[in-house]
Amino acid sequence: MYYEGKTKIVKIVENHALIEFKDDITAGDGLKHDVMTNKGSICAETTAILMDYLSKKGIRTHLIEYVPPRTLKAVPLKMFPLEVVVRLKKAGSFVRRYGGVEGEDLPFPLVEFFIKDDERHDPMVCVDHLEILKIATKDQAEKMKETAVKATLALKEFFEKGGFELWDIKYEFGLDKNGEVVLGDEISPDTFRLRKKGEIFDKDVYRRDLGDPMKKYREVLELCRSLSLQ
Amino acid sequence: MYYEGKTKIVKIVENHALIEFKDDITAGDGLKHDVMTNKGSICAETTAILMDYLSKKGIRTHLIEYVPPRTLKAVPLKMFPLEVVVRLKKAGSFVRRYGGVEGEDLPFPLVEFFIKDDERHDPMVCVDHLEILKIATKDQAEKMKETAVKATLALKEFFEKGGFELWDIKYEFGLDKNGEVVLGDEISPDTFRLRKKGEIFDKDVYRRDLGDPMKKYREVLELCRSLSLQ
Repeated sequence: MYYEGKTKIVKIVENHALIEFKDDITAGDGLKHDVMTNKGSICAETTAILMDYLSKKGIRTHLIEYVPPRTLKAVPLKMFPLEVVVRLKKAGSFVRRYGGVEGEDLPFPLVEFFIKDDERHDPMVCVDHLEILKIATKDQAEKMKETAVKATLALKEFFEKGGFELWDIKYEFGLDKNGEVVLGDEISPDTFRLRKKGEIFDKDVYRRDLGDPMKKYREVLELCRSLSLQ
Repeated sequence: MYYEGKTKIVKIVENHALIEFKDDITAGDGLKHDVMTNKGSICAETTAILMDYLSKKGIRTHLIEYVPPRTLKAVPLKMFPLEVVVRLKKAGSFVRRYGGVEGEDLPFPLVEFFIKDDERHDPMVCVDHLEILKIATKDQAEKMKETAVKATLALKEFFEKGGFELWDIKYEFGLDKNGEVVLGDEISPDTFRLRKKGEIFDKDVYRRDLGDPMKKYREVLELCRSLSLQ
């Protein structure tokens, strides 16, 4: 089996998946698109470090091992066609939908589900919709919510040690061969908003044309390397 | 106190509210707008009959009495800035958001919340958002969901006696002086989709320019008058 997405290629080899991170970067439902040298290896290694950290915190991820430079060996998952977003602060589409000020604190971590559907601009759904649309059962949705919040609070703590603020993050989940909900995909500046004293260390640098995104992605990787050794 | 909306004028007089239904009809976040003779009286009387029916089914509404031709005497409510939609079949914005075929059955009544905000095109929210945005507590939201589903199943049964299918319906709720969640606003072809053998008896006639909406609105009123006598 072979699947190529916007930023990754997934191959199923024997009993595991090989996930190759491409150098492509995209935004706006794929309308904005560039290729940036070393992006794939930076995001693959960042994901490996952060998923290894999460597994130490009791969160099951698909990661088996990092295969340098740009590949993860992983548990094969049947992915839900969903983006599961956890927000600690207001930003991005939350502000576009509901107003408010970027960076404002939320009173509790907010979990939002979006169907992966570029043509329909990834419409938001609530848990009832997931059942109606036969995307996930209520139990699976609750498991995703719970795991996403737990992972986010763990990552918030991780980055705080380096003086960074985690604002929000997007996860993707799948089912393993036993039907268990497992955290898949990636965790990188492509999938979270990370700030330090107003400075942007995530894909907003690219979305808003604020300079060389890879400079920031590389700094995040260095940060993850050094924090993971503590 | 005096409040004028797109289709109604609300005056607070002593301990009750007088809700005057205007002859205005609007669609598309108010972008489409017309005035149609007798619309106000038709929708006021239809609302009165249907809310009277619901109160007999144990659902508390704001209706005190119908004051012909176009006014309801009602319990004053502090309204939630929300549209609470219950869907029995796929139609309208559900199909635009998630695809599927108009008129397809849903496996259970789906409740959706939308913030009333024309500028932001009434964005959808889940229960957690209502708490985050301080619009309603979780208990209030659950009460709205429960009441909306109960009312919808009662109205479905009501219309079925006339051979009509209720597809979906929009409610608005408010808090009375004791802080109780009460069904307010209106129930009319402006707020539900009602079909009979493919024929449209609701505001989609107006939205899609399919003829004289008031002809259909009057037929629905006649139907409600006759069914309420059974």
